[in-house]
Amino acid sequence: MARLSHHEIVLFLLALAVVLGAARLLGELARQFRQPAILGELVAGILLGPTLLGRLFPDASGAIFPSQGPMAVAFDGLRTVSITLFMLVAGLDVDLNTIRRQGKTASVVSLLGMVFPFVTGFLAAWFAPTLLGKEPHGDRFIFAAFIATAMSISALPVIARTLMDLNLYRSDMGMIVIAAAIFNDLVGWLVFAVLLGTTERFHGAAHGPAATIWMTLGYVLFMLTVGRGLLHRGLPWVHAHTSWPGGFLGLAFVLALVGAACTTWIGIHPIFGSFLVGVALGDSSHVREHTKKVISQFVSFFFAPLFFASIGLSVDFIGSFDLKIVSAVIFIAMIGKVLGCGLGARWAGIAQREAWSIGFCLNARGAMEIIVGLIALQAGLIGQTLFVALVVMALVTSVISGPMVTRLLRKQRQRRLVEFLSPRSFLNPLRASDRYEAIQQLCLAAGAATKLDARVIEEAVWSREKMMSTGMGKGVAVPHARIEGLSEAVVAVGLSRGGIDFDAPDGQPANVICMILTPKEDDGAQLSLLADVARTFGPEQVRQQVMQISGYTDFLAVLNTQTL
Amino acid sequence: MARLSHHEIVLFLLALAVVLGAARLLGELARQFRQPAILGELVAGILLGPTLLGRLFPDASGAIFPSQGPMAVAFDGLRTVSITLFMLVAGLDVDLNTIRRQGKTASVVSLLGMVFPFVTGFLAAWFAPTLLGKEPHGDRFIFAAFIATAMSISALPVIARTLMDLNLYRSDMGMIVIAAAIFNDLVGWLVFAVLLGTTERFHGAAHGPAATIWMTLGYVLFMLTVGRGLLHRGLPWVHAHTSWPGGFLGLAFVLALVGAACTTWIGIHPIFGSFLVGVALGDSSHVREHTKKVISQFVSFFFAPLFFASIGLSVDFIGSFDLKIVSAVIFIAMIGKVLGCGLGARWAGIAQREAWSIGFCLNARGAMEIIVGLIALQAGLIGQTLFVALVVMALVTSVISGPMVTRLLRKQRQRRLVEFLSPRSFLNPLRASDRYEAIQQLCLAAGAATKLDARVIEEAVWSREKMMSTGMGKGVAVPHARIEGLSEAVVAVGLSRGGIDFDAPDGQPANVICMILTPKEDDGAQLSLLADVARTFGPEQVRQQVMQISGYTDFLAVLNTQTL
Repeated sequence: MARLSHHEIVLFLLALAVVLGAARLLGELARQFRQPAILGELVAGILLGPTLLGRLFPDASGAIFPSQGPMAVAFDGLRTVSITLFMLVAGLDVDLNTIRRQGKTASVVSLLGMVFPFVTGFLAAWFAPTLLGKEPHGDRFIFAAFIATAMSISALPVIARTLMDLNLYRSDMGMIVIAAAIFNDLVGWLVFAVLLGTTERFHGAAHGPAATIWMTLGYVLFMLTVGRGLLHRGLPWVHAHTSWPGGFLGLAFVLALVGAACTTWIGIHPIFGSFLVGVALGDSSHVREHTKKVISQFVSFFFAPLFFASIGLSVDFIGSFDLKIVSAVIFIAMIGKVLGCGLGARWAGIAQREAWSIGFCLNARGAMEIIVGLIALQAGLIGQTLFVALVVMALVTSVISGPMVTRLLRKQRQRRLVEFLSPRSFLNPLRASDRYEAIQQLCLAAGAATKLDARVIEEAVWSREKMMSTGMGKGVAVPHARIEGLSEAVVAVGLSRGGIDFDAPDGQPANVICMILTPKEDDGAQLSLLADVARTFGPEQVRQQVMQISGYTDFLAVLNTQTL
Repeated sequence: MARLSHHEIVLFLLALAVVLGAARLLGELARQFRQPAILGELVAGILLGPTLLGRLFPDASGAIFPSQGPMAVAFDGLRTVSITLFMLVAGLDVDLNTIRRQGKTASVVSLLGMVFPFVTGFLAAWFAPTLLGKEPHGDRFIFAAFIATAMSISALPVIARTLMDLNLYRSDMGMIVIAAAIFNDLVGWLVFAVLLGTTERFHGAAHGPAATIWMTLGYVLFMLTVGRGLLHRGLPWVHAHTSWPGGFLGLAFVLALVGAACTTWIGIHPIFGSFLVGVALGDSSHVREHTKKVISQFVSFFFAPLFFASIGLSVDFIGSFDLKIVSAVIFIAMIGKVLGCGLGARWAGIAQREAWSIGFCLNARGAMEIIVGLIALQAGLIGQTLFVALVVMALVTSVISGPMVTRLLRKQRQRRLVEFLSPRSFLNPLRASDRYEAIQQLCLAAGAATKLDARVIEEAVWSREKMMSTGMGKGVAVPHARIEGLSEAVVAVGLSRGGIDFDAPDGQPANVICMILTPKEDDGAQLSLLADVARTFGPEQVRQQVMQISGYTDFLAVLNTQTL
């Protein structure tokens, strides 16, 4: 077998380490600011690619990320595998039952949410192709059709995450949005696949456009009907007669690769194949949560960062940045999608604010738009300038989606205990012999941390405590109060190995005392934090682990690493 | 970026699918016969490689697995990543504390178990190099040193699996074996690394041999002391301040890649780097079980099969098979290891039969030997004939290890319920109104399945039942008996939605009735099956899921997919 040379192996491994490291690091940073990880991953690639590193240190950049030769080929192979598995995971997340259940409303929202941006996009691209960065050569109709498709696509993963953050995922509105997004994704990809099939340059004219379109439709239909049925029926057999989870994982990987090979052969992109395998597999109720987790976590933290960061490696984002085109793309994308979905939702009888929230949710383009753009770029449908504009548009629409919905619904995102902890208001061990002393100590700590008067806090918490004891049982107590002049919630935690009597229903003394102070005006904060305390310390193992920790970092680590 | 052509992508994806599919399929088959999965994975590669497919259909083989060109390079890149991650997982499994605890005995066993095969191997290779397939050119000393090292290596994963199968993993003997194997692995790899460092051909003379050896020792020392300490201290911080498990996974992958790049640069192989990163990481008590599982399952069922199957793709196992050399290698390997470890164990005061069992356990060479052989082949230390002999030796020693220990200790491997179920003795629903009828029905089914007289069984089971009721509580009952003339255990299962009174301690009627018949002579079978029933149906969710199944395959699927 042809092999990479010794020197190339060193560089290849280093390049992977650098790309993965930077992508994960910036991905984490993005999440600290409650942004999708993909934002950080893309930026990591941009920093390492021709945009920054290539400008500053062209030699280093060329050595680690060569654009020619065996290393580049090895990297490309890994990228292909990465995106194939990423789309398998994206497909596994699609639950066709949700569409069926939300049927009517979702289809109206989804249909208008596709037709509107499609038409707007097509018209804009047809009448003002240069404004949207059309390359001088190339077919005008295909260009317009591509822009239309690109505008009408959604990004299920980002949308699902936004809804979860806002505690809307299981709500009616959430289900409508998810159903619409799934439907949107399926149709959008299909249209895009057909479009690709008509461009000779991509598929190397292996088949004529008509054949490609028919085969694509055939593949989609087969996977969503026969394939899905066969898998659903076959899975219990696989689970019964192979080792677990090895048998299932092997099946999923092999099918994803075969599907990808199949759609590539048809003349469209590998991702369609594995995406539909994922949809067909994920729809079966026989797939176990544990296996989904293993695949999705490994893919999200190994393959996905590698893939998305690698996008930045091949494109110069400053050189190809054109403010006019970027603004035009963002404007057309948002107008079409928000209006389309919003009007659809209004038509289906949904109230004003919810309807526009649905619009902004579905407006998020995320990873999907970037993948579509990349394929179009590789197929020669668009140039680098438009590609950069699409990436920026995808990021902007994803980033604003959460804040817009928050504002429209006047709904706060779900708050989690860990966000409001600080080492200064963490007392371990808490030296107190009774409830009163415990509260006093915690108030002193909270006062020092917030610069509020400890006595004011103490009075508020203690008067609440006197009304009714805050012992929750199972060794947890949650003294709490609303405090005038507080701008953000404050949580003080004390751990007492001996336990302090908080008059709990089960009679057990409290070992974990979580004092929760929230702003007077913020209705949701107290409730949402109390619920999070109950959820966090519910499992016995968490309470046990917490009592064995040695410091604040350990405490945070225990709270952060629970599989909820 | 250089990219694979459209046609190459199709073939690359197909090749991956074929290799992975065949490897997983034969891996599963191997496990059905209670053999290590790697056996099947290797055979899959051999069938697909020049040994079989290449002979029969040279064109097809050449198209899917070309030995030159971009596809071969892409495959090689993926192989490098695969083995790097595989060794990370192997390292994560190493628990240095075990060595500390079993200290003295383990070190005697391990030391003799290394020195003995090392000396035997060295002498044999020195005095009879051609018998062991030495190529005519090449240094005699280095060849002898390599054979010596290859003979003294062990394979922790296979050994751990054998011990678990025999329910010996947590026993004193098990811990001694594991500790000895870990110590053995660490020293063996170090010696091998040093050896590689001295062969110019591999490291391309980037550094002199002396520099390579010093740097290797430096890297090992650093990872096992400072590196380990830093990771242990840093992990709580990572867990506390990054998303989980993303932060930890990212760290582990990046470190593994950097470590691999590092050791490659030093002039030894990438695997040493990631293996030691795994050891240093895995030793920290802060690593969570869940994260280990995600990494190890994905790697075991995606990267490992790809890697091990790919070995067969590059070597002709029939053309390079030389019976004389294979026999000599197996003989020398077994004599050295079994004698060395056995005598060591005797010396440490362990009884005769246990001592030789320890010898046969540590005799298993598994994946590690194959990796060592492959590296030596690539480095030009050995030829294909010896490589094939080493692979066969690795497989033979692994396959006989379980049966030999079973025979020596007269210990049966742990039996699991699922092995003795059959659709013919599965009654769903079980139509019976009381204990007596239930047992009668199950005996009829068992009789039909075994061709024993149902009335004889019934009498035996019922007389046992009358002595003391077999209701275990929580809705499970286990009527059982030992039956004369039965050659293997038989289990009959009946599910009753209404429940049947089996006079359980908790007063609940039994929904799951597992009748266990075991051979009269087999003492362990009954106990081990009863224990497995208790363990299997212990979690409430399993009992709930079982009551919702529709057929036998579903039933097996539920039992097989529990994360125990």
